[in-house]
Amino acid sequence: MKLYNYFRSSASFRVRIALALKGLPYDYIPVHLVKGEHQSEAYRQVSPTTLVPTFETDAGEHLTQSMAIIEYLDETHPEPALLPQDPMARAQVRSLAQLVACEIHPLNNLRVLKYLVKELKLDDEAKNTWYRHWCRDGLEAFERQLVQFPPSTYCWGETPTLADCCLVPQIFNARRFNTSFDGLPRTLAVFDACMQHEAFQKAQPSSCPDNEP
Amino acid sequence: MKLYNYFRSSASFRVRIALALKGLPYDYIPVHLVKGEHQSEAYRQVSPTTLVPTFETDAGEHLTQSMAIIEYLDETHPEPALLPQDPMARAQVRSLAQLVACEIHPLNNLRVLKYLVKELKLDDEAKNTWYRHWCRDGLEAFERQLVQFPPSTYCWGETPTLADCCLVPQIFNARRFNTSFDGLPRTLAVFDACMQHEAFQKAQPSSCPDNEP
Repeated sequence: MKLYNYFRSSASFRVRIALALKGLPYDYIPVHLVKGEHQSEAYRQVSPTTLVPTFETDAGEHLTQSMAIIEYLDETHPEPALLPQDPMARAQVRSLAQLVACEIHPLNNLRVLKYLVKELKLDDEAKNTWYRHWCRDGLEAFERQLVQFPPSTYCWGETPTLADCCLVPQIFNARRFNTSFDGLPRTLAVFDACMQHEAFQKAQPSSCPDNEP
Repeated sequence: MKLYNYFRSSASFRVRIALALKGLPYDYIPVHLVKGEHQSEAYRQVSPTTLVPTFETDAGEHLTQSMAIIEYLDETHPEPALLPQDPMARAQVRSLAQLVACEIHPLNNLRVLKYLVKELKLDDEAKNTWYRHWCRDGLEAFERQLVQFPPSTYCWGETPTLADCCLVPQIFNARRFNTSFDGLPRTLAVFDACMQHEAFQKAQPSSCPDNEP
């Protein structure tokens, strides 16, 4: 198995966590987003969408979109499970994951921030205000959703799920932009629990071969 | 079952399609986004994230995020299936759905367009350029991904899936902003096939009780 990815990409980080949780070995293929390597013809052959990450199976099949990759891994390597068994519990975990992946991250990723600066000519302050607005808005919604569930170590229950795979990279990203975490105690407690876990440590940007300190 | 939703919301439209494909009856509860009804205290009790749609089960449980709702419906009402059986096929369908739901729609929804106008003071032209930039960029990626798969009537195979539930509302939305569909023949052929299907007709904004022509 191969993972085409970038150390700082949140979507890449999600998949690295899932691979680490399942203890699956893979070849780490770096794609440097800031240098534009994802736009190269070579990468377009791997991933017609030009997005990272792309997962490659041993049979050479390519798959994009981090949540789709994680569910594929969960269906083909069921232990440890990254989704609960009960349909409503599975749905709530997916809902939390999608709150990050559909409401927060898309507004804050590199290509969008680039557009704000290059096309809309925003200065750093306006760009950071945009970032923090959507990130706070989303994390506050995440916290409100989380507190409706019974107390738990991770987002859902006592083992990491797809929701934790999505939350942790978002918190890393938010830190880089000095986003306030005030009023998010449950979310931060989950983050802290995750970062005690070896798989999350192993998957984090600073552990990646292409890391730039 | 109840669906809190808005006729013009793409995410609501996705779930209405899934409900119609499965022939499931539900109470349609309108939440007027433009009037800000999703921000009301009453709606916050239903959906702490304040987003639409929210699905309510007969047991009174609430679930948000359209793809999570559709997968829940698919797991609890398996016929007709909205995901293929094979793990890689399921993954490719999810990947297409997420290409719309994570890469296109989040940049183009109402709250983001409002921010562009109110906070960033963009004029109509700049707002529409933003819209079309991300919409075209995403639909071109969608087309490139689609043409890698064997020919099919719908996004994947001969019956509608989660991917079609996500694609069709995005095309409706893109039309409202006069987005060009040049160079997207496969994507548009899928759209046309879907719109021949009764379930898609029944779920479309103009068929909704809260429709405003």
